Amino acid sequence: MSSRREFLEKLTVSAVSLPILYSPASVLAACDGQPYKGPVLRVAIMGLGSYGNRVARGMESCKRAKLVGVISGTPSKVIDWRKKYDIPEKNCYNYKNFDQVKNNPDIDAVYVITPNGLHCEQAIRVAKAGKHVICEKPMAINAEEGERMVKACKAAGVKLLVGYRMHFEPKTVEVIRMRKAGEFGKTKFFQGQSGFVIGDPTQWRLNPKLSGGGAMMDIGVYSINGSRYMLGEEPIWVTAQEVKTDSVKFKEGIDETITFQMGFPSGAIASCLSTYAMNNLDRFFLNGEKGFAEMQPSTGYGPIEGRTHKGKLTQPHITHQTLQMDGMAQLIFEGVQPIAPVDGEEGLKDLKIIDAIFLAAKTGKKVEL
Amino acid sequence: MSSRREFLEKLTVSAVSLPILYSPASVLAACDGQPYKGPVLRVAIMGLGSYGNRVARGMESCKRAKLVGVISGTPSKVIDWRKKYDIPEKNCYNYKNFDQVKNNPDIDAVYVITPNGLHCEQAIRVAKAGKHVICEKPMAINAEEGERMVKACKAAGVKLLVGYRMHFEPKTVEVIRMRKAGEFGKTKFFQGQSGFVIGDPTQWRLNPKLSGGGAMMDIGVYSINGSRYMLGEEPIWVTAQEVKTDSVKFKEGIDETITFQMGFPSGAIASCLSTYAMNNLDRFFLNGEKGFAEMQPSTGYGPIEGRTHKGKLTQPHITHQTLQMDGMAQLIFEGVQPIAPVDGEEGLKDLKIIDAIFLAAKTGKKVEL
Repeated sequence: MSSRREFLEKLTVSAVSLPILYSPASVLAACDGQPYKGPVLRVAIMGLGSYGNRVARGMESCKRAKLVGVISGTPSKVIDWRKKYDIPEKNCYNYKNFDQVKNNPDIDAVYVITPNGLHCEQAIRVAKAGKHVICEKPMAINAEEGERMVKACKAAGVKLLVGYRMHFEPKTVEVIRMRKAGEFGKTKFFQGQSGFVIGDPTQWRLNPKLSGGGAMMDIGVYSINGSRYMLGEEPIWVTAQEVKTDSVKFKEGIDETITFQMGFPSGAIASCLSTYAMNNLDRFFLNGEKGFAEMQPSTGYGPIEGRTHKGKLTQPHITHQTLQMDGMAQLIFEGVQPIAPVDGEEGLKDLKIIDAIFLAAKTGKKVEL
Repeated sequence: MSSRREFLEKLTVSAVSLPILYSPASVLAACDGQPYKGPVLRVAIMGLGSYGNRVARGMESCKRAKLVGVISGTPSKVIDWRKKYDIPEKNCYNYKNFDQVKNNPDIDAVYVITPNGLHCEQAIRVAKAGKHVICEKPMAINAEEGERMVKACKAAGVKLLVGYRMHFEPKTVEVIRMRKAGEFGKTKFFQGQSGFVIGDPTQWRLNPKLSGGGAMMDIGVYSINGSRYMLGEEPIWVTAQEVKTDSVKFKEGIDETITFQMGFPSGAIASCLSTYAMNNLDRFFLNGEKGFAEMQPSTGYGPIEGRTHKGKLTQPHITHQTLQMDGMAQLIFEGVQPIAPVDGEEGLKDLKIIDAIFLAAKTGKKVEL
């Protein structure tokens, strides 16, 4: 039985993470070898679990973003992180006092990397403290929460960004570029398969209050988001079928396996699988009138591999979290948009689809969006 | 725009079709280089269209089956075939007089390769004439017809076999063998994608009376049948979603694109795509607890290509129709069953699922089987 981390790490090569950023306008600029002299996004990470650690490691290679603070309920972790990342004590907070970040001029943004069920309240508190919010996906556990987050950030005049690392990943960016350039012709079908066998039954991801759902919240969301950036349209209906073979491990409110389908205005369709009960499923397939793209793995942390009708995708693997954080800094400071949006509205669109999928699975009916 | 034939032929190599047969018990025997001295199944082909031609060519390499007669409504075709295959005039019939085959001791079986909507009546007439019936898939246009065919053949004491050529295809046989041997562990997911862009809008396949449906009848049935032989179970429910983008080409009663899902007693699920509107989709994927199989192309006439968790599938390509007809002869004469059934009951199971898919697509409801 593989753990979530093992699954996503499986294909990671310890490539030197070059300090190259990728966003449409700046690739060449970033590769010119000149030292970066622009503004740096000073980030505090909230939640020092395994993914928080991964983001911190990725940020070591960033040139536009820097880890400067932490928010954690575990003092021993704070001590470790302070040493490892040279973080001053004044930039360290816990879950009770982090509203005080508003008085800290040395922190620009907080990256919320806590269990899904905590995102909404925590993000709103960060926004009220006047700091930009970066929130791990899924942005929240339902659209109602997502809407409150979007509103709160708007009211506070801060950015709300969601950790859609694939929107900065070079092979993914290339496929989206090809689609936008019409190289696939009219896109007609997307298939997403997202799944692995989840391990430790005591983890927060299997606790419905903390996770808001099972495989769908964790990895099904990759197929949902992927269908949108691959097809370039917003779905107008969803249907879904749920299967549960282990109701001990997967309690009420924790989906084990859901197949779901989405219809799009052009007539395109998506057919996806989200599961915590099958090994190593990580495949995207886009089919158009003039060509196709096939990516496998499509969303893991390691090198994405893929091919299109034109041949193998050969863009370099760069640590996704490095690209994401540099790209988000560039978005915040220069307004440079990545090839697919990473803002709160984008996160909210996925949450609305998740709500609809859960409703469709429960009722057995097609749900219009 | 590719034609159906071009699609299915795409990967055919003109390999010498060795007179080797494949059925579980006889591979070694057939490869021993000894001349075959057993009984030969003497077959008349009904319907001399492009697939009839393909079967006839495949049979040239058979050692247990031989083309000895034709049934056609087109006298010029009969003349051509007589020359090409050295067929005596007394073994040639038309659609009016073919009941007289009952008085012909030189024909053992009739292979019905006519439009789907004609199979039922024609097969029953063949059965009543006392000849074994081999019927191209889909066996008929609905389960009610299929049941009548099964009954008629039983009453007449003749075999009813359906042209499931994949059940004799070496790589497919190997994957089924592996599944039966438990090499994939518990099988949990099957994905089938069957599609191509259909050409000529005047062909019988786009005429609902002759075809009984569109892509589903023609190629979706591969994913249906494949889900059953790959998972090794019978579905207990289906859901389906239909999308039509061209209602001129795809009239009422002709499905363009249907996504469908099937649930199985073990909790396994199948997620499939059947379409006449997308290029070159021909992929099977089977996922189990201990391994996987991926085949692409999975059902075309040319070499099947695939891999499993153990590596590339390297079984040889042998013309499917050769294997099928030799295997069917062996089934009829020796009772040797192929690795997955090819009888009327098997065809009927697929028809019941097709009926349920059409109902599910129409009503939007899950249909229990």
